[in-house]
Amino acid sequence: MSVLVAGTVGIDNIRTADGVHRDGLLGGSATYAAIAASFSSQVHLVAVVGDDFPTAHLERFAARGISTAGLQTVPGGKTFRWTGEYHEDMNSRETLETHINVLTEFAPALGGSQREPAVTVLANMAPADQLKVLAQIDRTGFVVADSMDLWINIARDDLLEVLRRVDLFVVNDSEARMFTDEPNLVTAGRRILEHGPSVVVVKKGEHGALVFGRGGKFHSAAAYPVERLVDPTGAGDAFLGGLAGALAQQQREGGGSGFAEVCRAVAHGTVLASFNCESFSTDRLSALSAEEVAARAAELRSFSVL
Amino acid sequence: MSVLVAGTVGIDNIRTADGVHRDGLLGGSATYAAIAASFSSQVHLVAVVGDDFPTAHLERFAARGISTAGLQTVPGGKTFRWTGEYHEDMNSRETLETHINVLTEFAPALGGSQREPAVTVLANMAPADQLKVLAQIDRTGFVVADSMDLWINIARDDLLEVLRRVDLFVVNDSEARMFTDEPNLVTAGRRILEHGPSVVVVKKGEHGALVFGRGGKFHSAAAYPVERLVDPTGAGDAFLGGLAGALAQQQREGGGSGFAEVCRAVAHGTVLASFNCESFSTDRLSALSAEEVAARAAELRSFSVL
Repeated sequence: MSVLVAGTVGIDNIRTADGVHRDGLLGGSATYAAIAASFSSQVHLVAVVGDDFPTAHLERFAARGISTAGLQTVPGGKTFRWTGEYHEDMNSRETLETHINVLTEFAPALGGSQREPAVTVLANMAPADQLKVLAQIDRTGFVVADSMDLWINIARDDLLEVLRRVDLFVVNDSEARMFTDEPNLVTAGRRILEHGPSVVVVKKGEHGALVFGRGGKFHSAAAYPVERLVDPTGAGDAFLGGLAGALAQQQREGGGSGFAEVCRAVAHGTVLASFNCESFSTDRLSALSAEEVAARAAELRSFSVL
Repeated sequence: MSVLVAGTVGIDNIRTADGVHRDGLLGGSATYAAIAASFSSQVHLVAVVGDDFPTAHLERFAARGISTAGLQTVPGGKTFRWTGEYHEDMNSRETLETHINVLTEFAPALGGSQREPAVTVLANMAPADQLKVLAQIDRTGFVVADSMDLWINIARDDLLEVLRRVDLFVVNDSEARMFTDEPNLVTAGRRILEHGPSVVVVKKGEHGALVFGRGGKFHSAAAYPVERLVDPTGAGDAFLGGLAGALAQQQREGGGSGFAEVCRAVAHGTVLASFNCESFSTDRLSALSAEEVAARAAELRSFSVL
């Protein structure tokens, strides 16, 4: 009943509005998602790095018990690098540099237990690479995918193929509007359902998330109010991983992965995303205890139920 | 156990992004708040109009059983007029014209039962005018106030005096950030509490509302997902009125007006605000039944509780 997390593993340089520069940080969509999922489930990481990837970064996966057998290293290759700058309100950011480097050589070769995960997470990467992962899995179980504005713009056909093959699609509010060309978020969320997934989660950052299911099912999930926001990089990926881990755990406990289970898993993703924002890179997630996760999950529940 | 609603009554001209122009509409902060409150309580309206104010508009108050004894008419005066245009996403708007006209002559003269309301609503108007109303009330009961960016910028001292004298302050997200010069909404909400109110509600439009109480109390309230958004004008005022009406009703039923009661009342305000957005002016609110309100309130509860 493991979670397979495929996506990018990279090295980030972050600039924040208050002038802080942090370089050489562990980043990437699969990094955040895998570490977040590891609080609820055994995790197999599937990604590609160059041989410049620091051992110290690798140790962060090991410390969380994450299997890196599926982490391909390209000899002589350079790891994916991204530099981003946050604006004053921390809700918007600008990409200053992207070097995709070895991402072009992503060639997953899954074996053994990796091929039958309970939950497959296709974290943000080229939709064509997400399809490569799906093609390697014998029994797909429950599949969750994320994407980004870039792929909506330049790889829409591949993304539509991904949508036809996943159970749950997670997208942020601006991407949902862009993808559907529909300003109303509720209409946009419902439209995305028509492309294949049985559940769509629209993330709204600090405003929480909306969950759309077939037959008009709808749920509004509160965000955890992060007062000390240090770096939101990876929050969406941590949300995705936390959500997937919780789904795998619900399956282990005999539950399904229907609308209600996804909604409960969204709350768990919200908790992991909130911790993630409290530090640079995976610093907070890597230092997090299961007790802290449980306490914040209880606190979050108390915010929305009277 | 009535609700006194003081604020503006005016005539609006609205332009929406899809090219619709609607002129001569009944508008104003007290208009929306009074009609919304009337679903839960007897309402006294306190405002000023000119003798150009159409009888048809007056009838909308009568139809909801709202007392207009406190609606002052200035002979030869012109009613407050506002023209606004909505941008594509309906979340942002521009004021094209404002003619305050008789608002400068606002001189409330409350008598009898108007002087002892269970809940006083100081809907958006000049803070100096809000203070005039407070000065006329014998026993203030519970006082709720709203404001806007204009008063934060040009009448901050008066607004601070209002804050010292109210129990609940309702503010939207951008105004909360502007007022406190603090980008983090949670920090901003907590800062406003320090100015006097025992509860602060930060409205986030389609993203719901945050409720802050003394001692770190916090609640996140979901918005109702309005799929057919026609005109959001007055949504914040309808929210305010719905909230105040529900507080008065809770008092009638023997409850208090503490943090938990305000949170429940916020849900009621959310329901009225959502209906308000489905039409121009008060068209939807004026045609609304108590059964529709109850049904949507139940639906909203189901969205946030699993």
